[in-house]
Amino acid sequence: MSSRDDTTSQRKLIDVGALASTLAEFARERDWEQFHSPKNLVMALTGEVGELAELFQWMSEDDSRNAASDARVGPAVRDELADVLVYLVRLASVLGVDLNAAVGQKLKTNAAKYPVSASKGTSKKYTEL
Amino acid sequence: MSSRDDTTSQRKLIDVGALASTLAEFARERDWEQFHSPKNLVMALTGEVGELAELFQWMSEDDSRNAASDARVGPAVRDELADVLVYLVRLASVLGVDLNAAVGQKLKTNAAKYPVSASKGTSKKYTEL
Amino acid sequence: MSSRDDTTSQRKLIDVGALASTLAEFARERDWEQFHSPKNLVMALTGEVGELAELFQWMSEDDSRNAASDARVGPAVRDELADVLVYLVRLASVLGVDLNAAVGQKLKTNAAKYPVSASKGTSKKYTEL
Amino acid sequence: MSSRDDTTSQRKLIDVGALASTLAEFARERDWEQFHSPKNLVMALTGEVGELAELFQWMSEDDSRNAASDARVGPAVRDELADVLVYLVRLASVLGVDLNAAVGQKLKTNAAKYPVSASKGTSKKYTEL
Repeated sequence: MSSRDDTTSQRKLIDVGALASTLAEFARERDWEQFHSPKNLVMALTGEVGELAELFQWMSEDDSRNAASDARVGPAVRDELADVLVYLVRLASVLGVDLNAAVGQKLKTNAAKYPVSASKGTSKKYTEL
Repeated sequence: MSSRDDTTSQRKLIDVGALASTLAEFARERDWEQFHSPKNLVMALTGEVGELAELFQWMSEDDSRNAASDARVGPAVRDELADVLVYLVRLASVLGVDLNAAVGQKLKTNAAKYPVSASKGTSKKYTEL
Repeated sequence: MSSRDDTTSQRKLIDVGALASTLAEFARERDWEQFHSPKNLVMALTGEVGELAELFQWMSEDDSRNAASDARVGPAVRDELADVLVYLVRLASVLGVDLNAAVGQKLKTNAAKYPVSASKGTSKKYTEL
Repeated sequence: MSSRDDTTSQRKLIDVGALASTLAEFARERDWEQFHSPKNLVMALTGEVGELAELFQWMSEDDSRNAASDARVGPAVRDELADVLVYLVRLASVLGVDLNAAVGQKLKTNAAKYPVSASKGTSKKYTEL
């Protein structure tokens, strides 16, 4: 295997290291580690996803495709996506979960659950394919 | 400024590019783009966060700190974190939102809302500080 | 005013008393009161709402209108609605909140926030009317 | 069986009829029926549950038991519980689901899944009992 292949095969699906460090420092400076139990962070994540849902609740699917470029709702969408990301990364971090490894494993599972031939053009769950 | 400084200052908080590409290809192969409206993906994200919450709902905060290393619940925790990540990245992708930029902006907002002096050791919302 | 009118005017918006009692007994028999802190029940409620969202996530709005009469998804919809109701009533119960009073108060607030003249035909939030 | 027993056995677990009617009228007056598809209402329900979670996210389990009597957070707790109830009842209503029947069926299922002998003092899911 050439070194080029090596590099390619080792490219991470995601790298959230710098954000995780920044969030850890942010919490440490404020003495917030006491509040950041995984249980609490799951609730905080829930809350942010709820705020995201509120932005989309009365929108048609078609309108939702243009939500980010809408002058009124776009900034709020970016804000809430960032909030969800912040709590997801912080949660994985305090749990000691490697998100890149977890998602790599998940993609393998999903590819096995949803072979192209069976799942093409259908939104059915793998248990119903 | 040296080129090295340039590189450093440009280090991304997160890089989800490879995952976003993989998910786009996964959807395209299965003709799933028709289902992946932002509105639908927000609901899917909600569903996965709900599954995550189920894992933690009866756990004490203390037990939640060891959830990932628990033989029984650990694999499920990694699975659900990955599912949340998958839908978050896919959602940002179809919306055309740059998550790295959005979270960079958000961190600035949070730093302004929660100065260390006012927020140290308290979980109060910025509106109550 | 006759006593009959009195009775009518006092008709409750909701009456969840029998369900609340049944759930309390169910928990007591199983020694589950230790797990039923409001914090935990909020997470359980979140989990059930997540399962409900999963049923609707890939459905069009039009199809969602017929979800309950669909032979495949209908029973699951009823099941998840019941689960959400169970945790909501149990949560209010352990918190000591009178849901009928709370919703009566809320309806007054909503009527004030959304006068017919300003809110007719628009899904805008009251802060934007 | 006496007629008195008949009456007793027919007592509803819940009665949400008056609230459902009030909400239907509220929507009709404002021409909001167009927005109230089940899919949209599930998202609205999600949003309200998210707001409820936000109130409890940094609270200890012990503190959560006194949340409703807390002068600062109590009114917000009642408000959010009412919001969740409103969307749940409205959702069942537009779906044509009889919540009383659904929850009656659910209680039977739960009693079978969680016999007292097997589930006493444990928070394990029925699949693990």
